[in-house]
Amino acid sequence: MTDAAEATDRNTAAVLAPTERGRVRRHPDRASYDREVVHAVLDEGLVAHVGIVADDQPYVLPMFYGRDRDRLLLHGSVASRLVRLLSAGVPVCVTVTLLDGLVLARSAFHHSMNYRSVVVLGTARRLTDDAAVEAGFARLVDHVADGRSDEVRAPNTLEARQTVLLEVPIEEASAKSRTGGPIEEPDDLIEPGWGGVIGIRTVFDEPIADEDTIPGTPLPPSLQSYRRGTG
Amino acid sequence: MTDAAEATDRNTAAVLAPTERGRVRRHPDRASYDREVVHAVLDEGLVAHVGIVADDQPYVLPMFYGRDRDRLLLHGSVASRLVRLLSAGVPVCVTVTLLDGLVLARSAFHHSMNYRSVVVLGTARRLTDDAAVEAGFARLVDHVADGRSDEVRAPNTLEARQTVLLEVPIEEASAKSRTGGPIEEPDDLIEPGWGGVIGIRTVFDEPIADEDTIPGTPLPPSLQSYRRGTG
Repeated sequence: MTDAAEATDRNTAAVLAPTERGRVRRHPDRASYDREVVHAVLDEGLVAHVGIVADDQPYVLPMFYGRDRDRLLLHGSVASRLVRLLSAGVPVCVTVTLLDGLVLARSAFHHSMNYRSVVVLGTARRLTDDAAVEAGFARLVDHVADGRSDEVRAPNTLEARQTVLLEVPIEEASAKSRTGGPIEEPDDLIEPGWGGVIGIRTVFDEPIADEDTIPGTPLPPSLQSYRRGTG
Repeated sequence: MTDAAEATDRNTAAVLAPTERGRVRRHPDRASYDREVVHAVLDEGLVAHVGIVADDQPYVLPMFYGRDRDRLLLHGSVASRLVRLLSAGVPVCVTVTLLDGLVLARSAFHHSMNYRSVVVLGTARRLTDDAAVEAGFARLVDHVADGRSDEVRAPNTLEARQTVLLEVPIEEASAKSRTGGPIEEPDDLIEPGWGGVIGIRTVFDEPIADEDTIPGTPLPPSLQSYRRGTG
């Protein structure tokens, strides 16, 4: 199999090929390299924590992102140091975490959290083609609300020039999750106190129009799903 | 002023001293080095994204944490590579982000998010003193629910030996936030469509007892605040 064929195979396989450095070491039973599992977490998250190295110091910054098939899209100002480093192709780690619950055990040691997280390792590549940049912008806006990009003005030349669109391949990626109640020591259950789970949810409030919105302007279709409370 | 006096001064000052590398570069108007602002974000968050470097590759992993005065507390298994590297004193970046809202503008370019985030740079130090480890465990549990540590069994010798407690000083730290509605181009407001904000909240569900809880066991005092929905 040639390198190119192997690359194609990796991109279409249901299972992401774990590399040694991309392998989950702690609690490997909680890990997944399944493409659908990875994508589902990325599609639900709103903020990624992006890690890069500069002068041997790691920096972790929150960034908005989107997913387009097998790549993550990031964006930022041309004036941003993070964006400049990412554009230069430095190694990057993009992590998205969804908190699902507090796990309350009878011992301090067994307290835990339920969560789903994804870690993507790789390098970013700047999109320079005008059409690719425009499509990337649209995907980012649609990540918040599907169809939103059709409702708003696309970036003009000046805006596109101020912004760097970056893609990171979702190839060296892993998902990790914990679900369920506390794990307990048998001795702690002889006279058990209360133990259990408190679920955590991200809830969206009713959309609030700004003062530039003419009264009576209907909420755009892309935002209708947010009206029910949990978009 | 001696070094020791200066260190004391930094620890008690209301304003954290921004270093060159710890300074917020993008949108410095959204930055704060105020100790109270930094602490408030850290106290509200539940998960930190912890960045370290290994073989020139950044890794960003979600970790539970707690705050004890002017230090962050982290913990993990002695078998964890991340914990081993942190214990060795490698440079670390700890970032906590709270999402407050989606900002929906009339242009793709001006879409944004409302958020509060804190970035802490430094190095971790392993706590080895038995009393310090036990107090650290208690702070971590109390971060989830104030007073919880008094309700549960403290770590035994074996559990304490399996766990590494780490502290990171909150000295080289910055907070950043965005609030309010979209910023618009005047031309986009000539015939404005809908624009505004959708608030985002973290909501806690009603606590659910596990099957080891004897029916009728009251919810412990530390968890009562979660009953009202938003702990």
